Amino acid sequence: MNSTARLFNFAAGPAVLPLPVLEEMQHDLLALPGVGMSILEISHRSKTFEAILARAEADMRTLAGIPANYRVLFLQGGASLQFSMVPMNLLADDSTADYIDTGSWAEKAIAEARKAGLKGGGSPGSIINIAGSTKAERYTRIPAQSELKLTKGAAYVHMTSNNTIEGTEWQGLPEVGDVPLVSDSSSDMFSRPISIARHGLIYAGAQKNLGPAGLTIVIIRDDLLERSTGRAATLPTMLNYAVHAKNQSLYNTPPTVAVYTLGLVMKWLLGQGGLSGIGAANARKAATLYAEIDRSGFYRGTAQKDSRSLMNVTFRLPTEELEKEFVTESTAAGLDGLQGHRAVGGMRASIYNAFPEAGVDALVAFMRDFERRHG
Amino acid sequence: MNSTARLFNFAAGPAVLPLPVLEEMQHDLLALPGVGMSILEISHRSKTFEAILARAEADMRTLAGIPANYRVLFLQGGASLQFSMVPMNLLADDSTADYIDTGSWAEKAIAEARKAGLKGGGSPGSIINIAGSTKAERYTRIPAQSELKLTKGAAYVHMTSNNTIEGTEWQGLPEVGDVPLVSDSSSDMFSRPISIARHGLIYAGAQKNLGPAGLTIVIIRDDLLERSTGRAATLPTMLNYAVHAKNQSLYNTPPTVAVYTLGLVMKWLLGQGGLSGIGAANARKAATLYAEIDRSGFYRGTAQKDSRSLMNVTFRLPTEELEKEFVTESTAAGLDGLQGHRAVGGMRASIYNAFPEAGVDALVAFMRDFERRHG
Repeated sequence: MNSTARLFNFAAGPAVLPLPVLEEMQHDLLALPGVGMSILEISHRSKTFEAILARAEADMRTLAGIPANYRVLFLQGGASLQFSMVPMNLLADDSTADYIDTGSWAEKAIAEARKAGLKGGGSPGSIINIAGSTKAERYTRIPAQSELKLTKGAAYVHMTSNNTIEGTEWQGLPEVGDVPLVSDSSSDMFSRPISIARHGLIYAGAQKNLGPAGLTIVIIRDDLLERSTGRAATLPTMLNYAVHAKNQSLYNTPPTVAVYTLGLVMKWLLGQGGLSGIGAANARKAATLYAEIDRSGFYRGTAQKDSRSLMNVTFRLPTEELEKEFVTESTAAGLDGLQGHRAVGGMRASIYNAFPEAGVDALVAFMRDFERRHG
Repeated sequence: MNSTARLFNFAAGPAVLPLPVLEEMQHDLLALPGVGMSILEISHRSKTFEAILARAEADMRTLAGIPANYRVLFLQGGASLQFSMVPMNLLADDSTADYIDTGSWAEKAIAEARKAGLKGGGSPGSIINIAGSTKAERYTRIPAQSELKLTKGAAYVHMTSNNTIEGTEWQGLPEVGDVPLVSDSSSDMFSRPISIARHGLIYAGAQKNLGPAGLTIVIIRDDLLERSTGRAATLPTMLNYAVHAKNQSLYNTPPTVAVYTLGLVMKWLLGQGGLSGIGAANARKAATLYAEIDRSGFYRGTAQKDSRSLMNVTFRLPTEELEKEFVTESTAAGLDGLQGHRAVGGMRASIYNAFPEAGVDALVAFMRDFERRHG
């Protein structure tokens, strides 16, 4: 490989970005046109950066049809910090939050919610109800609506829209009535059309479909901000949604470079036909790959068919030895990052928005060749 | 100005970066040499990124002489989140923390510590003692050792080594005995030689002397991590220093691009003769600018002479009208970002590590010309 050749990057995140985004960033890296400074150097209080932030938000609103009564927050700390911020802001003492347990990341969200729900002294101040779980089936599927045991009047229902490690994805949103639906959409936000209005809050780390690592997007309905305002006296200021909303995400210095890059990705997504356009492309890529997995008995998908993720395609080979060989040979062939998460083993092909269809075709060709030689 | 010309950027942060750092980043932006992916795209679990992180830390340890019993953490959220994390990790119920109040950012740290020190129900669980303050003098100086009222057996003493808004800087560290000294060094970390061993914890947002926005450095002495471990059951995992230390800053996805850039800056600083080399250059730049301020009665420094900052040089003009004119004309002359913080007014020239001496000379020439025309 020569020093500038680009591989097919199947990593689960940080992940591949659109080449035109990287090219524009590279072109302007020493000085933004007409500004005289690099994006890495400009003040977050400058008119230039304010315009970059406003444009990123406006394009996101256009892309996802975000209603006017929702705020977009540009934060730090990843989904992992949201696991704490959601209950710290939205869950009052002596109330209940419903959590749907669909995978490793949902489990982490539940553990942090239990911590956040403790009163002084460590006694339970609120109830974290597991409203549904497929843990007993090693998270190989999303639970059906009929399986959910939702709490009437819950503070919110928490779900994980795509389970990056297990390769499952909600095919539609659960019915939760008037209770706010909170979704960790870290690994599928803006990968297909979305109904923001059916959510109370959606959050995602940017590093899969939206941009580089170091930026977290929170989309929150206005009325939920009042819960944060009510606990401003005790909530750390940096963890208070209402503070960030009031300050247009400029309470302190935001991750300026990541916001800029996300803005370029939003523009690129609009150019791909928006969420319906990128959603169709993502469906095509996943269908191609799942068809190859289902073609013979050599490869075996790990997620149940009605719960398969369009983002993270997980599969096994007949033996762990063959899986090791598959990783070695595919890496050598320029197909990088196919090893599954260490918690579950096997293979995982992450094919987010920016992952090219040519890369899926290359993987399918490699899989056929590998099976011919080792099957 | 043509589209790629670079201005002299006097912004207080995010701030100017070394041109060789930006050039290397630009050169490799589409694909790191031999890696086949952009730094924006590589997995934080990849060997490539692990090597980038390890090299950044190793170079930082060499640069600042960080002893082996200190850990370096690469976090998110800025100094503002540290305002909460410090007391949440280090301050037990029924104990006292001393805070030295030297400016606007120290005040914010104090407000967050008071919040963090509340028990369930909002009653005070710990005492935040103001061990010294120059607020009555509008923070124009750093208090003398003799003025400090330190608490015997305090959990820690908190100081702000450089006051970005007021233009003052500690000329040496306070004597605090066996109590851990915690320093917010956001605006002067690694701008001059530092004795890490005299601190218990040092933190800084990267966006002034160290790299782009979105990365926070915490250097913490091993024994202080035990306080975090002791409260792991209630502390949000993402706010627990011990968790980040145990996971080598890879508990969750770190801000990979910012870590990479900081690594390039560390390498550049080593090439400048390390902290003594850059410290001498910073002293020269500041001396040149303060000499011009003191030369005639037209400009007036706002900080007392024995407390002047080498990083943020603050000064006033005879009238606010002249100050407005100064901002307008200096901006037009390619000297950007000289307007003082909105809280205090006047002028501020931030001349961090990467700010070139030629920019200081250009400002001095402009100041003389401005005085000749308006004085």
